[in-house]
Amino acid sequence: MNPAEIVNKMYSHDGFSQWLGIKVDAISEGKCELSLTVRKEMLNGFGIAHGAIAYALADSALAFASNSHGRQSLSVDTSINHLEAAREGDKLIAKATENSLKNRFGLYTIEVFKEKTLIALFKGTVYRTDKEWQP
Amino acid sequence: MNPAEIVNKMYSHDGFSQWLGIKVDAISEGKCELSLTVRKEMLNGFGIAHGAIAYALADSALAFASNSHGRQSLSVDTSINHLEAAREGDKLIAKATENSLKNRFGLYTIEVFKEKTLIALFKGTVYRTDKEWQP
Amino acid sequence: MNPAEIVNKMYSHDGFSQWLGIKVDAISEGKCELSLTVRKEMLNGFGIAHGAIAYALADSALAFASNSHGRQSLSVDTSINHLEAAREGDKLIAKATENSLKNRFGLYTIEVFKEKTLIALFKGTVYRTDKEWQP
Amino acid sequence: MNPAEIVNKMYSHDGFSQWLGIKVDAISEGKCELSLTVRKEMLNGFGIAHGAIAYALADSALAFASNSHGRQSLSVDTSINHLEAAREGDKLIAKATENSLKNRFGLYTIEVFKEKTLIALFKGTVYRTDKEWQP
Repeated sequence: MNPAEIVNKMYSHDGFSQWLGIKVDAISEGKCELSLTVRKEMLNGFGIAHGAIAYALADSALAFASNSHGRQSLSVDTSINHLEAAREGDKLIAKATENSLKNRFGLYTIEVFKEKTLIALFKGTVYRTDKEWQP
Repeated sequence: MNPAEIVNKMYSHDGFSQWLGIKVDAISEGKCELSLTVRKEMLNGFGIAHGAIAYALADSALAFASNSHGRQSLSVDTSINHLEAAREGDKLIAKATENSLKNRFGLYTIEVFKEKTLIALFKGTVYRTDKEWQP
Repeated sequence: MNPAEIVNKMYSHDGFSQWLGIKVDAISEGKCELSLTVRKEMLNGFGIAHGAIAYALADSALAFASNSHGRQSLSVDTSINHLEAAREGDKLIAKATENSLKNRFGLYTIEVFKEKTLIALFKGTVYRTDKEWQP
Repeated sequence: MNPAEIVNKMYSHDGFSQWLGIKVDAISEGKCELSLTVRKEMLNGFGIAHGAIAYALADSALAFASNSHGRQSLSVDTSINHLEAAREGDKLIAKATENSLKNRFGLYTIEVFKEKTLIALFKGTVYRTDKEWQP
């Protein structure tokens, strides 16, 4: 399966990414670009997007970018820095970069933008299992 | 305002914690315990709870525990390790512990359990502003 | 080999832990307690212990605690929060706790104290290879 | 004081960076490049560079890059992923990038290379005090 087929398959079963309204704007081996628009039910007690929204977008980007190579890959450790608030109606864009790919591990940085402004920086390590994605 | 009043106020505006069905099981200064039940629309492409669900529960616990002291506090840096999968119907419980509280910063560890099993470990730093919670 | 034998073997080859003057105060499966005394050549440009000193003590504690089970284990991802400064002459104590141990991964929290004060909190994930420690 | 003057002043008091043999290869506002050569006393029990060596190089790069703006800045939260082993005689190079600079916080990514190979990826947040560097 090629990267787009794998991500289509993952996305079609991924109820939470669907609830978030995530769009897959680009996908290739080890890379992807996703976006979503912040809705009212994604806000926290300060009236801004809950930290988990940027995390969710970045974590889906991690999953899609790392699985795109064809081997099922699971998140081991992730961290995120929240730099700027996002508000209702804002469009958030996540861009995944592969920093390292080895037999057992992949390391990815995901930048989350609101227009041109970096609003969160995410770093994630995945463990690459021996299980291949099958049609 | 006491911790319960602050958290009630925060929660009543927190549409995302409400969507998640988060219950505040205990709250006191610097501590809190939250829970939620995993629903179908919280699952990812592997049929298990999306990593952002445990993150969201832990991040809400961070917000409630740190704001309970009365000063508005914002997340700066968070990390989470995913140890075990959660499935539809599982009840997840988050327990926040305050490791350090200083004038400008607070550091918290949040353990996320499925029954007695630790399924995720979260660490978060907050910045404590000078703004007080007001009724 | 038992935990003490493994750690003795590791330590006898560990020139950096020796340079740091690390003492192994306690060791058992999945746990250990180490200490060192801050020397002048461990200070940074602010006249306080360089952040890498607390990191080094915690990282050695991670290595000893995780390898004590008998399988060679390597650090994958670590993070540390610096809470208080340490000065020349301060004795630092690191206590490792095992949060999770599975076939391929172990997760550990290491607290670094100066007397009773927590000065740093470290979290580390190790990958457990199939290679056993041999005498 | 300009970035080079600040870093010279910091370095002249930084006994640990001196012990490590760190060289400042480039410095400008928000950026720096440092290097060191791995010595025998920097190795751990596996005969490879102790994780704290790459951490120390990256943490010094964080300190120099963030303080170069003229305000005294302190590390709050740092994380590092170890990707490849370094051995005695290897030259390590750290490159600091500023991801975000705000009034109170700066966020930096530091890549540590052995020749062209990324061996560690470090992310660090600093708190920017009101204290200015003075000659």
